[in-house]
Amino acid sequence: MTSPLRFEIHARCSHTAARVGTVSTPHGDFDTPAFMTVGTRASVKGILPDFIRRIGGQVILNNTFHLMLRPGSELIERMGGVHRFMNYKGPILTDSGGYQAYSMADINAIDDDGVTFKSIVDGSSVRLTPERAIEIQNQLGADIIMAFDDCPPSVDPAAAPFNQARLRHAISRDSKRSRTYDHASRLSTANERTVRWLDRCKAAHANPNTQALFGIIQGGTDLDQRTQCVQQVCNIDLPGYAIGGVAVGEAFDAIAAVTQHTARLMPNHKPRYLMGVGYERDIVAAVRSGIDMFDCVLPTRNGRNANAFTTTGQIRLRNAACADDPRVIEPGCDCPACDPIAFGWESAHETGFSRAYIRHLFMSGEMLGPILVSLHNLRHFQRLMLDIRLAIRHDGWSKFAQRWPVAVEGLTFSASHSN
Amino acid sequence: MTSPLRFEIHARCSHTAARVGTVSTPHGDFDTPAFMTVGTRASVKGILPDFIRRIGGQVILNNTFHLMLRPGSELIERMGGVHRFMNYKGPILTDSGGYQAYSMADINAIDDDGVTFKSIVDGSSVRLTPERAIEIQNQLGADIIMAFDDCPPSVDPAAAPFNQARLRHAISRDSKRSRTYDHASRLSTANERTVRWLDRCKAAHANPNTQALFGIIQGGTDLDQRTQCVQQVCNIDLPGYAIGGVAVGEAFDAIAAVTQHTARLMPNHKPRYLMGVGYERDIVAAVRSGIDMFDCVLPTRNGRNANAFTTTGQIRLRNAACADDPRVIEPGCDCPACDPIAFGWESAHETGFSRAYIRHLFMSGEMLGPILVSLHNLRHFQRLMLDIRLAIRHDGWSKFAQRWPVAVEGLTFSASHSN
Repeated sequence: MTSPLRFEIHARCSHTAARVGTVSTPHGDFDTPAFMTVGTRASVKGILPDFIRRIGGQVILNNTFHLMLRPGSELIERMGGVHRFMNYKGPILTDSGGYQAYSMADINAIDDDGVTFKSIVDGSSVRLTPERAIEIQNQLGADIIMAFDDCPPSVDPAAAPFNQARLRHAISRDSKRSRTYDHASRLSTANERTVRWLDRCKAAHANPNTQALFGIIQGGTDLDQRTQCVQQVCNIDLPGYAIGGVAVGEAFDAIAAVTQHTARLMPNHKPRYLMGVGYERDIVAAVRSGIDMFDCVLPTRNGRNANAFTTTGQIRLRNAACADDPRVIEPGCDCPACDPIAFGWESAHETGFSRAYIRHLFMSGEMLGPILVSLHNLRHFQRLMLDIRLAIRHDGWSKFAQRWPVAVEGLTFSASHSN
Repeated sequence: MTSPLRFEIHARCSHTAARVGTVSTPHGDFDTPAFMTVGTRASVKGILPDFIRRIGGQVILNNTFHLMLRPGSELIERMGGVHRFMNYKGPILTDSGGYQAYSMADINAIDDDGVTFKSIVDGSSVRLTPERAIEIQNQLGADIIMAFDDCPPSVDPAAAPFNQARLRHAISRDSKRSRTYDHASRLSTANERTVRWLDRCKAAHANPNTQALFGIIQGGTDLDQRTQCVQQVCNIDLPGYAIGGVAVGEAFDAIAAVTQHTARLMPNHKPRYLMGVGYERDIVAAVRSGIDMFDCVLPTRNGRNANAFTTTGQIRLRNAACADDPRVIEPGCDCPACDPIAFGWESAHETGFSRAYIRHLFMSGEMLGPILVSLHNLRHFQRLMLDIRLAIRHDGWSKFAQRWPVAVEGLTFSASHSN
């Protein structure tokens, strides 16, 4: 078996676990640490696929859960696979569908063999097992595919803060299934299943030479469970591994602690992927713990809601303060909204699209608003990754901290490392 | 007074009134016959402004009615005018707001001085007079601005076929205002007002050196009224003239008859603009009657509804027949959806975006569906205009007819002129 994936590490940070590398796939390379652009239904919401490339995105994530329900993986296979279907030649990763099945659907049954849930498209009963999840991902044909895992709530309901909506949501789903919810036992069941299912995923994988299967480490915020899971999962030889079940509503500290604890127990020479993370600060902390890959819906989701990321924090473009504001979202940004000239847009003024105009678009319900802010936000995260890679190569965290206040808030490294 | 607009005619068709020319404005030139891209609220729905240029659009139309209500012409003026506001350096035309005030708003009063209506944004009472309509357009700062006119229903309610929804709508609005609606007297009142208001518009126009004011000819489908109106309107010296009030739901024959009758009475050396038209066949017939400018929401409106224009007719991309269809919308089309490689999209496959994929986008409510089909449709109309200009220059209507079956259906010229 030849691995379809090659991971080369080019440079390491001298005083953290951060590293810069390249992941090579059958559809091209991407630099790490990488922020993957989320294209849930084989479409990055509102963005023409070539723009992903032009603003620095090198790898796209599609959600198996959504695509299996509509239009169906068999149809996508007939259309030549997901690269051809969404008309994107670069690297693509699909998740297994497990996480969404747990977090989005009405679960009818969960057992040691898989999960049965209600389709959010037509209400029909859908069964996902390790074998079926891999079969679907084989049909989709992404370069990196994810193991089907059991996703427990990350922390005990009793300990969950009130404002963490997604977390409480996941908990209430789990509580429904058991009147006497025991978090510790739920975690260990999930770990056992996750490992057993990973073996079955690997055995079911029909295209090991063209699609790289990644294992997923569960264990919630219980570090002992994480230790146990990482050892068992990484004992199964695979081209890469992911940390799952951490970005479901926990606070920054919890994500950082789990990541730091788990990452150092993962193989050094294989890509490490922290699923569903996150904000700039989460990403920086995780990179420094040795994480290589990220994905998150924040750039497009917040973009659609008129929230623009900047190096000093988010701007709400619907605010009345923007009504008369001739400035671009972030002066100095090289995205198509802030600097259209850089993109060869001959019809544009050098000044870019003003906050006043973008606010007008949102107030009027014009699609161009979400499009412009999503482009800006996607570029924001790619600029962040570029600067992170630069900081790692040149031990330049102090300069990085000056450029990215939003990404280092509350972190102490900028003071202790003066370079 | 120097006219801000120059119109040069480069070629004339040997056996029709069609002509090819260039309109020069302070923000650049556009070729005629021209199809203007509609950007109602200073945004072409879903389309980044530079794409308008890249797919051959040379002039954009913005609607004064919408912009005066939100964000307000004063704000746009403070932001440097509509070119800067929407970040588009090319030629822009604004209408007067009159047509939408009549067709979209609840009218509270209409009199010899203007119209009072209810804002569709906040319900407030808004007054439009010739002077105010011009003041607003002066603030917006488009290259071509339109006179404020009185828009009567184009045909008598008694004669209106049932399926012409927009027309019947307009009639019912007018009927509300008078229990004893007399169409002939409504038309002549509208004509008198339109001419009187045009004088007031011209007098109120503060920027005659930088913004070209066009007069509008009314008269419904009554050719005598059209004759009278065209004489009175064109007696007022202006850089261009438009035919209004014909594309409000009439059949092809009615539009063609009014256009043919009216166009030949309009000055030969000034641009002639047929407002709100239309389908391919309407455009071809009108071009052959000597019309130089068009605008219509069809490309983007139908694009948002998954209806794609092709040279042989529209395709409904939501149809189940498209679910498994690997073909692009129209093979041979050079739009970004059908031929992304031609647009330098390095990440795209040579085959373009399949109907199957585009259908999936619409079924999933993904913005990219409307975006791709709108781009295709906009390019479709620009290709139509390119081929029309070619046909005029080379007397090539017969070849044109072969390439554009949808545009010549029921027309007889292709047989009688064999070149």
